[in-house]
Amino acid sequence: MEELVEWLARFFSPNLLIKIGLALLQLVGILITTKLLLRFGYFFLERLFKGKNKSDKYIRQRNKTLNSILKSALRYILYFIGGTMALEVLGVPTTSIIAGAGVVGVAVGFGAQSLVKDIITGFFILFEKQFVLGDYIKIAGQEGFVEEIGLRVTKIKDFDGIIHNIPNGSIKQVTNLTASARRVVVDVAIDYQQNIQEAITILDELCQEVKEEHTNIIKDGPTVLGVQELAASSVNLRITAMVDPFQIWEMERIIKQQVKEHFDEREIEIPYKHLTIVKKSEELV
Amino acid sequence: MEELVEWLARFFSPNLLIKIGLALLQLVGILITTKLLLRFGYFFLERLFKGKNKSDKYIRQRNKTLNSILKSALRYILYFIGGTMALEVLGVPTTSIIAGAGVVGVAVGFGAQSLVKDIITGFFILFEKQFVLGDYIKIAGQEGFVEEIGLRVTKIKDFDGIIHNIPNGSIKQVTNLTASARRVVVDVAIDYQQNIQEAITILDELCQEVKEEHTNIIKDGPTVLGVQELAASSVNLRITAMVDPFQIWEMERIIKQQVKEHFDEREIEIPYKHLTIVKKSEELV
Amino acid sequence: MEELVEWLARFFSPNLLIKIGLALLQLVGILITTKLLLRFGYFFLERLFKGKNKSDKYIRQRNKTLNSILKSALRYILYFIGGTMALEVLGVPTTSIIAGAGVVGVAVGFGAQSLVKDIITGFFILFEKQFVLGDYIKIAGQEGFVEEIGLRVTKIKDFDGIIHNIPNGSIKQVTNLTASARRVVVDVAIDYQQNIQEAITILDELCQEVKEEHTNIIKDGPTVLGVQELAASSVNLRITAMVDPFQIWEMERIIKQQVKEHFDEREIEIPYKHLTIVKKSEELV
Amino acid sequence: MEELVEWLARFFSPNLLIKIGLALLQLVGILITTKLLLRFGYFFLERLFKGKNKSDKYIRQRNKTLNSILKSALRYILYFIGGTMALEVLGVPTTSIIAGAGVVGVAVGFGAQSLVKDIITGFFILFEKQFVLGDYIKIAGQEGFVEEIGLRVTKIKDFDGIIHNIPNGSIKQVTNLTASARRVVVDVAIDYQQNIQEAITILDELCQEVKEEHTNIIKDGPTVLGVQELAASSVNLRITAMVDPFQIWEMERIIKQQVKEHFDEREIEIPYKHLTIVKKSEELV
Amino acid sequence: MEELVEWLARFFSPNLLIKIGLALLQLVGILITTKLLLRFGYFFLERLFKGKNKSDKYIRQRNKTLNSILKSALRYILYFIGGTMALEVLGVPTTSIIAGAGVVGVAVGFGAQSLVKDIITGFFILFEKQFVLGDYIKIAGQEGFVEEIGLRVTKIKDFDGIIHNIPNGSIKQVTNLTASARRVVVDVAIDYQQNIQEAITILDELCQEVKEEHTNIIKDGPTVLGVQELAASSVNLRITAMVDPFQIWEMERIIKQQVKEHFDEREIEIPYKHLTIVKKSEELV
Amino acid sequence: MEELVEWLARFFSPNLLIKIGLALLQLVGILITTKLLLRFGYFFLERLFKGKNKSDKYIRQRNKTLNSILKSALRYILYFIGGTMALEVLGVPTTSIIAGAGVVGVAVGFGAQSLVKDIITGFFILFEKQFVLGDYIKIAGQEGFVEEIGLRVTKIKDFDGIIHNIPNGSIKQVTNLTASARRVVVDVAIDYQQNIQEAITILDELCQEVKEEHTNIIKDGPTVLGVQELAASSVNLRITAMVDPFQIWEMERIIKQQVKEHFDEREIEIPYKHLTIVKKSEELV
Amino acid sequence: MEELVEWLARFFSPNLLIKIGLALLQLVGILITTKLLLRFGYFFLERLFKGKNKSDKYIRQRNKTLNSILKSALRYILYFIGGTMALEVLGVPTTSIIAGAGVVGVAVGFGAQSLVKDIITGFFILFEKQFVLGDYIKIAGQEGFVEEIGLRVTKIKDFDGIIHNIPNGSIKQVTNLTASARRVVVDVAIDYQQNIQEAITILDELCQEVKEEHTNIIKDGPTVLGVQELAASSVNLRITAMVDPFQIWEMERIIKQQVKEHFDEREIEIPYKHLTIVKKSEELV
Repeated sequence: MEELVEWLARFFSPNLLIKIGLALLQLVGILITTKLLLRFGYFFLERLFKGKNKSDKYIRQRNKTLNSILKSALRYILYFIGGTMALEVLGVPTTSIIAGAGVVGVAVGFGAQSLVKDIITGFFILFEKQFVLGDYIKIAGQEGFVEEIGLRVTKIKDFDGIIHNIPNGSIKQVTNLTASARRVVVDVAIDYQQNIQEAITILDELCQEVKEEHTNIIKDGPTVLGVQELAASSVNLRITAMVDPFQIWEMERIIKQQVKEHFDEREIEIPYKHLTIVKKSEELV
Repeated sequence: MEELVEWLARFFSPNLLIKIGLALLQLVGILITTKLLLRFGYFFLERLFKGKNKSDKYIRQRNKTLNSILKSALRYILYFIGGTMALEVLGVPTTSIIAGAGVVGVAVGFGAQSLVKDIITGFFILFEKQFVLGDYIKIAGQEGFVEEIGLRVTKIKDFDGIIHNIPNGSIKQVTNLTASARRVVVDVAIDYQQNIQEAITILDELCQEVKEEHTNIIKDGPTVLGVQELAASSVNLRITAMVDPFQIWEMERIIKQQVKEHFDEREIEIPYKHLTIVKKSEELV
Repeated sequence: MEELVEWLARFFSPNLLIKIGLALLQLVGILITTKLLLRFGYFFLERLFKGKNKSDKYIRQRNKTLNSILKSALRYILYFIGGTMALEVLGVPTTSIIAGAGVVGVAVGFGAQSLVKDIITGFFILFEKQFVLGDYIKIAGQEGFVEEIGLRVTKIKDFDGIIHNIPNGSIKQVTNLTASARRVVVDVAIDYQQNIQEAITILDELCQEVKEEHTNIIKDGPTVLGVQELAASSVNLRITAMVDPFQIWEMERIIKQQVKEHFDEREIEIPYKHLTIVKKSEELV
Repeated sequence: MEELVEWLARFFSPNLLIKIGLALLQLVGILITTKLLLRFGYFFLERLFKGKNKSDKYIRQRNKTLNSILKSALRYILYFIGGTMALEVLGVPTTSIIAGAGVVGVAVGFGAQSLVKDIITGFFILFEKQFVLGDYIKIAGQEGFVEEIGLRVTKIKDFDGIIHNIPNGSIKQVTNLTASARRVVVDVAIDYQQNIQEAITILDELCQEVKEEHTNIIKDGPTVLGVQELAASSVNLRITAMVDPFQIWEMERIIKQQVKEHFDEREIEIPYKHLTIVKKSEELV
Repeated sequence: MEELVEWLARFFSPNLLIKIGLALLQLVGILITTKLLLRFGYFFLERLFKGKNKSDKYIRQRNKTLNSILKSALRYILYFIGGTMALEVLGVPTTSIIAGAGVVGVAVGFGAQSLVKDIITGFFILFEKQFVLGDYIKIAGQEGFVEEIGLRVTKIKDFDGIIHNIPNGSIKQVTNLTASARRVVVDVAIDYQQNIQEAITILDELCQEVKEEHTNIIKDGPTVLGVQELAASSVNLRITAMVDPFQIWEMERIIKQQVKEHFDEREIEIPYKHLTIVKKSEELV
Repeated sequence: MEELVEWLARFFSPNLLIKIGLALLQLVGILITTKLLLRFGYFFLERLFKGKNKSDKYIRQRNKTLNSILKSALRYILYFIGGTMALEVLGVPTTSIIAGAGVVGVAVGFGAQSLVKDIITGFFILFEKQFVLGDYIKIAGQEGFVEEIGLRVTKIKDFDGIIHNIPNGSIKQVTNLTASARRVVVDVAIDYQQNIQEAITILDELCQEVKEEHTNIIKDGPTVLGVQELAASSVNLRITAMVDPFQIWEMERIIKQQVKEHFDEREIEIPYKHLTIVKKSEELV
Repeated sequence: MEELVEWLARFFSPNLLIKIGLALLQLVGILITTKLLLRFGYFFLERLFKGKNKSDKYIRQRNKTLNSILKSALRYILYFIGGTMALEVLGVPTTSIIAGAGVVGVAVGFGAQSLVKDIITGFFILFEKQFVLGDYIKIAGQEGFVEEIGLRVTKIKDFDGIIHNIPNGSIKQVTNLTASARRVVVDVAIDYQQNIQEAITILDELCQEVKEEHTNIIKDGPTVLGVQELAASSVNLRITAMVDPFQIWEMERIIKQQVKEHFDEREIEIPYKHLTIVKKSEELV
């Protein structure tokens, strides 16, 4: 009997008992920590979506869905980590589990990198305020008014009424066309036979008239800069003006119509393409 | 005899027995866990495909095939991980197995990253509802009606009746052309000899007529904006209108025909290209 | 003598004996497992190639070769893993072997990633049935009839009789031109002097005739849509029709010949390019 | 009783006590170090933003936000590392936690690499002073005046009044157009019938006049280089000059107007495109 | 003395002796295995190059060189691995050596990935027989006859007599132009004044003649398809034929010459570009 | 009391004392090594910047700044490594710290790879002397004189006076235009009616004259090569010459002016574009 | 005293002594191995550069520099590895050192991958002899004579006398234009009114003459292939010939001049562009 006791005593040595105790303690600890982290994560997600809770019903619906997806993801990840740790505590080797999860993780990570890039760029767009809702901008080769700035996608609406969804990660250069004033450039072609100085004088008068008539949208000019080009069939004079950003197209139309009407009055013609014809002498005989 | 017992006792020391016991326990645990995970995985897959079970026979067939493929994949992966863990429990070194599987996994992961990207983008397309079935959209340089939105591929059908299968990963910018109203732009060329104001008046009348005749599809306009361009051989006037998205081509045709007919009535000609001919004097002699 | 025994006893302590026994057991286990996996792999490969065994002699030959190559690869890999595990069991450090094999594996994995991509995409092409043998498709910028769909390469044959081998990995967008009906578009140019309504009436009659004559290949139309463009030298009217997918080119030719013949009857001319000539007055003197 | 003591003594062996003591010591150490690093990090961030504190209110606001974001990030990272270390000290296996965090870290790292590239390039732009505020430069295909040089984004404003936000990472080649002097090139076309030497003499005089009139902006020239091209319809002579960088457009306009006026005086014409007409003899009959 | 013995006995304890013995055994094992692997590798390389031993002297020379280079590489790698393992057996820590070699290996692996890709693609080209020596193919944008298919490079010789060396890795799409029959397409332009039906009849006769004269190279046709295009200045009729792949250029020339000669006989002209001239009335006065 | 001593003795067993001693020793060693490496690093940096110390004040200033930045970086890195090693010596687990630093390191490493590439390419440019200061080169699509060759950026100044900063990593192909002699190519167009042999004789004389007049800058030629092209409206003859690299533009101008003047003397005309006009007979009636 | 001895004996137990002895042995071994490897590396580098030692003084100078740089690099790397191993032998944890060095190594490895690629491709260029010094080749879009084939860069010199330095890694397709014979293609345009058969006869005679006159450089032909194209304004006949690779430009010029002269004799004209003019009847009135 005593031998058995001794044998058992050797069996359940203090070392072993401590180990078992510690293992139990650790298991309980893992369980509690997992639960706590899960609760904290839920709380964090709730706050995250509450903070951005807009009155729009559609967005609220979307947030709800996104919230429940993220909670599921969090739950599965925490369960996986907790379970793996428990196995390790029990002395089960988990290298192969972790290696497997690692390979999957890396594959997903690779595929998800454009998603991560979208979100990081989205964050900086929101943070640096390169544009705000309603701005008229040009991103990724597309012009339009900013309709929505999301974490992953920016929506812009062009003049044709079409909405372009542009992933933030494909936004490199941001051109904000909602400046305080934009430049209008009109090139006026006159005939080579035409006296340049006379034409410039007429255009100067025209500029003065336009300036007086549209003071509300003009910031600066219009001014005649001079001979921009000795072109193939015409001398081109350039007029520029700084106007309100959304009036540049209208201002261009006004100046062009004025030029045509002023030139009609003074009987100055805007020249067509010219071609000098040479007839071969031997053929003419 | 006693020596043998003692020798055996030393042989089968408590430590060893515990180790053997633990190993057996772990093996049984691994077996059960693998089975459980397999069953859970099967159940999860069933539910995943049940949830998306459409009445379409073809899709049901496909889901069935996909389901059985995924089950096979899951089974092989779990068997591999379970087997490797069992080997480790038995003290067989498995570093080389895991390293081998890792290299294969990384290679497959690299090759599969566009697949993962397809699925992640597909998920966001479904989730963010950038377009729905039946929308007329432009993705990856291709316009068409959305026929099917899959996890990996989106199918669109263009006006020529052709179906384009576009992997979701190659969808960057999504342009949704199914707006509430789209813009029609018609540029009308008139002769430089023509009085601009007169032409604009005629076009204004025309716009009014079109507006009254097609109130059902027109949202706004048509309006004459003015002199868009002093072109090489003509003065171009611009007309714009906002119409139902799928009526823009019809509306363009209506306005163009009206312009031709109104101009014919008033005997205004739409000018051809002009060329001013200069004859070399010395050659003319 | 007794000391020697004791010394030996200490030498061949139970612990050591167990270790040696275990090592032997593990070596035998590794040997058996390797053999079993090899046999299972062979069996699996046999079944894989048997399942796809087509009656074509050439493919059978190819499968045989591929089979023997894959068996060699499997054999070398299993021998390598088994050998490394045996070394580890014998206590020989194998870190450097595994590291070396890892670097080679990663290098090969990098180089092979386009191969893996080919096969993964090939699998999805086969699985999603985006096209089948005989379809007329457009992939990777090349149009043609599908001749063969392989795991790595898809072969298409164009109208010129040429075969294009396209690696599956370079197939992004799949355009299947074997639709139920495809659209034919013919733009007819008429002179600006020509009465539009008259021309449209003639084309309407023509459409009716074509429709009646070719009911077997026409699904819908042909219809005159109206004034498509007020072009530089002509007014362009558009005719469209939906026809059998492989009759679009024939239908285009029929409509064009009909247009020419109908216009010839009514003496309507298809206009050449127009140019308005202006002579400089001063030069004319 | 004594046995219990002995048993306890064996239980709480010096080894164990030392281990427990050490663990407690380490836990305390980890706690203190984490706190210290947090405080030091805060201090460092404060100084970083203080050092760049500009009087601009908007930037101060942004710095404040950025500061609080970075502090949060730092806090979470330090807490995570500290917590994991504590778990390890307590003997809880943390491989799976670290592996999980590692995968997330690598994914974020991949997505963030363009951000890191922006900042590294930004640092070198600031450090190498390739351009300073107010310079007129060309980067990433965009010309404009430098408005702001940030760590992530450089802002330039073009002549049209539009601001372009260019991520530093997309700046490859930097062309600084704010040179001490820039070259103006004007090509003057004269008729093939025209005597070249005479034309060159006239242009030489013109250059001399321009030089005297605009000494303040001209650094060198203008000079007539000679026959640049025997073009299709004209002999082209080239004039070049070095002027103040922002006067090149004005100088071009001045020279062009002068050329036109000087040629008008001497009745030299700038030729139109020439075409030699050959009439088919058989057709002329 | 006895104490010394005992001390020594404790020193050279069985455990230690076993360890030393094992180490010696392992060292010898490593030495033998390295030697064996080296010999096996040499043998394998010999067989590899013997198997591909062509009678061409130049290739034999090259194989010899390549063989000796590969043997050197193998020798250095095996010596490195063997040496590192020996160090580990001796208890020298080798982590830093392996880490260093790993970094070098990864760098080389990255740089070598295009080499690996070349070889893998080369293997598949040889294996899938997409083309054989003498075929006329188009790869990587280059057409030519296949001169040599190597593991790394494919050589093709174009009609100009130039040899293009194309790395296999840059071969994506393989177009094999050595088809059983290729299509010839000839578009014949006739005047708008010309009767279409008459022209088609003439071309039909011509096709019949060509068919009879060149039966040896023609597989199908030539056939007149009909009105291919109502072009700007001509009605275009299309003739197609299927001929031997290397006769398509000759057949094109034959048909074109025949068309010209047949049209000359019937006095049908192939039209030049047409232009309708309109003279401005006001200018004519 | 004795028991306490014994207990303490067991507590502070030789093993423990040795361990403590060793730890202290190692800590001191780490401290000293860190200090030494820091000093050595400082010394190395000093020498590096001293060796390249140019008399230019601006560069000295920059080196100073760069030096202090690099010293800070070195200090932080060494402190981090030293601190981590100290923690490990104290038995604190540092896996999580190293993992964290590793992720940051990899992210920075990815972002910095273009920087590393710049510097490596820069080193080879300096080392291989592909170009030196003052050379006229073409790199990355930009021509100019080399102003500065830096480790990261090469500065070139073009003829317009503009400085281009080109990161060395974007320099692929280096074209050095500062050759010993460069070729001038002038194509002279003569009329189809012109006798070719006569024109060649005139050009030969011209070449002889130019050669005699500009012996200082001409290395070889100019020579008339013969009929380069039977172009659309002219026969083109080619003249080539080898001249000093920076005289090619001047030589081109000289030859062109000479050609015009020689042709004027002999009354040979340089032809304009030719067009053969055919009048439709039916229209002429 | 005895207790002290015993205590010391327990202190300096055989185990410890063996450990210390082993450590010393290992340290010495590391020292010696490092020295040996360094010497061997030096010797290897010497031989490498001696083997390629050309008589050119410049290259000798470069090799010397490169040699000393590589020796420094080798020395630093070996010292680093040796030092780290020594630390490990002394029981100092080196994980953090190796991790740090690893991150640096990976960053450098990434940046250096294009360098490694250059060298690997360079090796294959040298080894596969795709071109040799003096060949006229086309690589990376640049034609020229091979001046130097280096491990990193290949230098080619074009006809303009300019040297292009092309990194071997950017050499994909190698086109060797130094073939045994290259093809000359001349397209001759004749009038549509011209009798084709007559023109072909004349060209046949011409080919015969050219063949007889230039037998030394002609390998095959020249031959008249027939009607290459029924072009817009002319019938194009094609002549081809195989000539010495560097005579193709000269041969082209000879054939073109001959064509012009033979046609002049027979009064056959090379046609200009043709245009059929139609005059609007209503305008002519």
